[in-house]
Amino acid sequence: MTRARTTTPPPPARIVIQRPSPAVDDGSYPAKRCVGDTVEVSAEIFRDGHALLRAAVRYRPVLSGAWDEVELRPVAGEADRIRWAGSFVVDRAGLWQYEIVAWTDRFGTWRDELQRKLEAGQDHLSGELSEGVVLLREIAGAASSAQNRSTIERALAVADQTALMDADVYAVAEREQTRTGGTTIGPIPLQVDEQRARFSTWYELFPRSWGGLEGVERQLPQLAELGFDVVYLPPIHPIGHTNRKGRNNSPIAEPGDPGSPWSIGDESGGHDAVHADLGTTDDVRSLTRVAAEHGIEIAMDFAVNCSADHPWLRQHPEWFNHRPDGTLKYAENPPKRYQDIYNVNWDCEDWQGLWDALLQVVLHWVDCGVRTFRVDNPHTKPAAFWAWLLEQVHARDHDVVFLSEAFTRRAVMRHLAKIGFNQSYTYFTWKNARWELIEYLTELTTSGEQEYFRPNFFANTPDILHEYLQLGGRPAFEARLILAATLSPSYGIYSGFENCENVPVEPGSEEYLNSEKYEIYHRTLDGQLLPLIGAVNRARRDNPALQRLDNLTFLETENDQLIAYVKRSGSNTIITVVNLDPHHTQEGLAIVPARLGLPPAFAVDDLLTGERFHWHTGRNYVRFDPGVRQAHVNRVESEVE
Amino acid sequence: MTRARTTTPPPPARIVIQRPSPAVDDGSYPAKRCVGDTVEVSAEIFRDGHALLRAAVRYRPVLSGAWDEVELRPVAGEADRIRWAGSFVVDRAGLWQYEIVAWTDRFGTWRDELQRKLEAGQDHLSGELSEGVVLLREIAGAASSAQNRSTIERALAVADQTALMDADVYAVAEREQTRTGGTTIGPIPLQVDEQRARFSTWYELFPRSWGGLEGVERQLPQLAELGFDVVYLPPIHPIGHTNRKGRNNSPIAEPGDPGSPWSIGDESGGHDAVHADLGTTDDVRSLTRVAAEHGIEIAMDFAVNCSADHPWLRQHPEWFNHRPDGTLKYAENPPKRYQDIYNVNWDCEDWQGLWDALLQVVLHWVDCGVRTFRVDNPHTKPAAFWAWLLEQVHARDHDVVFLSEAFTRRAVMRHLAKIGFNQSYTYFTWKNARWELIEYLTELTTSGEQEYFRPNFFANTPDILHEYLQLGGRPAFEARLILAATLSPSYGIYSGFENCENVPVEPGSEEYLNSEKYEIYHRTLDGQLLPLIGAVNRARRDNPALQRLDNLTFLETENDQLIAYVKRSGSNTIITVVNLDPHHTQEGLAIVPARLGLPPAFAVDDLLTGERFHWHTGRNYVRFDPGVRQAHVNRVESEVE
Repeated sequence: MTRARTTTPPPPARIVIQRPSPAVDDGSYPAKRCVGDTVEVSAEIFRDGHALLRAAVRYRPVLSGAWDEVELRPVAGEADRIRWAGSFVVDRAGLWQYEIVAWTDRFGTWRDELQRKLEAGQDHLSGELSEGVVLLREIAGAASSAQNRSTIERALAVADQTALMDADVYAVAEREQTRTGGTTIGPIPLQVDEQRARFSTWYELFPRSWGGLEGVERQLPQLAELGFDVVYLPPIHPIGHTNRKGRNNSPIAEPGDPGSPWSIGDESGGHDAVHADLGTTDDVRSLTRVAAEHGIEIAMDFAVNCSADHPWLRQHPEWFNHRPDGTLKYAENPPKRYQDIYNVNWDCEDWQGLWDALLQVVLHWVDCGVRTFRVDNPHTKPAAFWAWLLEQVHARDHDVVFLSEAFTRRAVMRHLAKIGFNQSYTYFTWKNARWELIEYLTELTTSGEQEYFRPNFFANTPDILHEYLQLGGRPAFEARLILAATLSPSYGIYSGFENCENVPVEPGSEEYLNSEKYEIYHRTLDGQLLPLIGAVNRARRDNPALQRLDNLTFLETENDQLIAYVKRSGSNTIITVVNLDPHHTQEGLAIVPARLGLPPAFAVDDLLTGERFHWHTGRNYVRFDPGVRQAHVNRVESEVE
Repeated sequence: MTRARTTTPPPPARIVIQRPSPAVDDGSYPAKRCVGDTVEVSAEIFRDGHALLRAAVRYRPVLSGAWDEVELRPVAGEADRIRWAGSFVVDRAGLWQYEIVAWTDRFGTWRDELQRKLEAGQDHLSGELSEGVVLLREIAGAASSAQNRSTIERALAVADQTALMDADVYAVAEREQTRTGGTTIGPIPLQVDEQRARFSTWYELFPRSWGGLEGVERQLPQLAELGFDVVYLPPIHPIGHTNRKGRNNSPIAEPGDPGSPWSIGDESGGHDAVHADLGTTDDVRSLTRVAAEHGIEIAMDFAVNCSADHPWLRQHPEWFNHRPDGTLKYAENPPKRYQDIYNVNWDCEDWQGLWDALLQVVLHWVDCGVRTFRVDNPHTKPAAFWAWLLEQVHARDHDVVFLSEAFTRRAVMRHLAKIGFNQSYTYFTWKNARWELIEYLTELTTSGEQEYFRPNFFANTPDILHEYLQLGGRPAFEARLILAATLSPSYGIYSGFENCENVPVEPGSEEYLNSEKYEIYHRTLDGQLLPLIGAVNRARRDNPALQRLDNLTFLETENDQLIAYVKRSGSNTIITVVNLDPHHTQEGLAIVPARLGLPPAFAVDDLLTGERFHWHTGRNYVRFDPGVRQAHVNRVESEVE
């Protein structure tokens, strides 16, 4: 006698799952991770009443389609037992996603309540046991294996308290029971990049100052030896001659002035061409191949602007801004004028043609072996374009790294990172005081931004020679190098830094005098800072703690001119102390708090000098004489001495 | 010669709108406001490039359907100019929604760039002027009024710099221009309640101790005089006799024991019946009518549990939990047993019938004039049920107030508030130290919770007699009364508080000795604290600052036994200082910081005593002798003396 099944829908879900982590804007954008990372997942999970819950995270690389699952458990020590956590490893690059699922643990709830009654000495529990029998019969009926079924059936054959409460029966029942009232949230996206998207060491150079692409190729062994793994080239394309800029950004070029590489294109070609003085497309292929042999990526500049002589202005005048009289509009941000540059009109009718042409440019260079792009001023172009471009490129070649060169409002910089840029320029160059560095790094590492915004700390760029470097001389360069290299897993310098070049075009300006943007230098790699640079980069290579962003703890120093911080990864611990004052001797303390769990006393090796010091938890005296020593990069050695 | 229109879609939106406020979980749940409130709306709005934006908030009461619109402007002083803000008034109760829309200000951008060029002394601007002409022609062509069109056409007729830059033309153009690239987010919900959902003063009494419903009715004039506007009655329904609880929660009732009102239902009726000893349904109607004449709401208890004798157990046995042998299961949370209560089975097949029956109970009492419900233990029932029930009731009668009696994990309490409960019980009773109060109130007022969680600070309940009251005597009652009444816009006391009743059933328990839950008292309204209660409630009625939650600032006191805080609303400022030590004289300071903007010196009137004191910005000496004075509730008077 079975009742006819009714069509009553099941009651709405009783389980709430909220605030998943990692999740950027609640899953609107992917959180970023790297291949090999263990992703620590958590969420708040609860339901009404006293029933026990179970929860799991399901995860997959989107392209493979196969879901895996790992159990979540309530976070130990969390008073409310609201947050559940678990983890999984992302073992390949590309877009991943995860879901969190939770269900009511009917059998566990029954067992837990019976347990509590037994502990309280209650008897007359036959009603309770009969409930357990019903639950186990259900579970046995739907068991996934004969072995599991028989485990339960053996308990049911006895059906006393001992049999029903048996640990093996419990384990099988938990695995086999129906996920009653299951609730799911997600999928929540993760962008899994190669490790080099997080950890990279950049050297920027103008090929025309090094003898063109072949000249650059000759520098690769030494650059690799120095520990650089990305060599970034400003645009290598033909340069316009109409309204070409002269030396020191003069609006009038003298004969022989080479022009700015960012004024792209002339009659010989545009974004997919190579400047005749630098070499050929084949030279680019050779350069990327040889670089790869040295463990170096060649990063190319991607600047969406055209000189007046760019072929697109004739082939596709509809892609550009015009006056009502039909004349083209050069770029400007009044009262500033950029007469040597024409911006595209993103709102033109053929915007799809324009987008596609730009994609083809990127794919062309990807095909030449370029897997890293430094994107010029992405914040002045539509974010939707970048989202699309990056998706297209990553769908074909997921390990291409895009560095966003946006110095603008924080929300805009963050947005570009959210939509997919793998790395981002930062305000690091303008953060020179202890309080500024601590405030800025605290934001970058703890505000939520660390989930998607990967900083690349350039110590200088062709556009930014900070007053700190202008006035501080070699000690200032040492301090900024070490800060950049040890605070951020990705950092870079622009050539000339190793020579402590620091003369501005005029007082108060951050532009270099005789900027390489407008003239050709004859550079060689022999600057006074190269030994220090080599040592710092070796320290970075050898120490996993320096390859992550979110493992940073600042230390008290009792001197505002000294900044100290610890980075830890597993058993690898680096304590860096930097004298921010390039002019005067400074002494103070690096106070190692007990909560770090380091031994009461321990040895440290200074990775810059090879010296060994004896430190301890608590107050460590430090002293720095500019010109002699500007910093410690101390690795904690395991043995206590 | 017009070109054939192509079918190219427009490019994707370039404007980003994010982080709207107010918004609970980004708009997943309504933020709460009250009728007459000015809703301050803001959002982060940006786009790529340098173009100017315009933005507006559109809003409407959902039922009326008509959208209104108010302009948003960048928030003054916000360095990045990312956040835009505006406001509107919600003038009726019910569900509202708002959207935020932003668009590119093409004419404003053109005018701004031309302005900057003029200021820089640039000339040869005919190209720029011709662009303005094109923009204005477009605008004139689509103008909404002949007057606006003619304003623009007059400017176009001249078409020189002065005419095109004219302020009137600008104003018309801004109003009339097409909203190019418009982006919208929302709708984002707002729950607009009557003011009494935020500001209310509760008195809880057991009608059986006051001569039934008629007896309660006789107390109404005095309760109104004392400033109470909600009189909350524990369940007034028939009480089960099976397994009835005796005095002091004894599992065995003696003959004549009345039982717990929360063990609802007997042969004479269930949730929609009135206990014969208390009166009739007509008496409820009379009580709510007379109460209304005194400005008082009658709050009824809504407890979804049934005694063994509740009619539903026979009429709808399928709504309850059964053992496999068919016997019913009483409520328990092992090892605790509630033998006089049967919980419904929310997962039963006829859950829809059960939900509907419960809705009918609420609507029945609404029809008897009850517009406030104190919901017993909502966290042990499905949140989805409450969301549905509240929506159903509010759709019919939007000013019914539901108070959530959940003392459980914070996330669960918050969730109940998010899904619609108008008020919530809190942990106030257990926050007695200065640091606990500051921590808890800071969370309630600044964590985001203030957007949807409206605390009701009960100073005591039939279940909670805190040790602070047990040990502190009358001064403790004074302190807790004043804290509850001045920290939270809604607060309540349970009768006996005014008599300083404070004997627990046993040491360490928060249960009252001879709890009124299990026996009948013979109460009269003549407690020693009534004059103070009347004064405090008058202060609340007369001072808008005490009617809001989010206007709280704590002051330094230089004594941990003293707590001081300011509440301000417009020109109304109340400074409360309370001695938390019921045993000893305490002296200290109330330090009024300059940032509050109060005059250097000002008079305050103590609303508890009528005394006038001379205070000033800075340090004000205060001293409290328990038994003489436990607190100041000082109103800042406008005149400086």
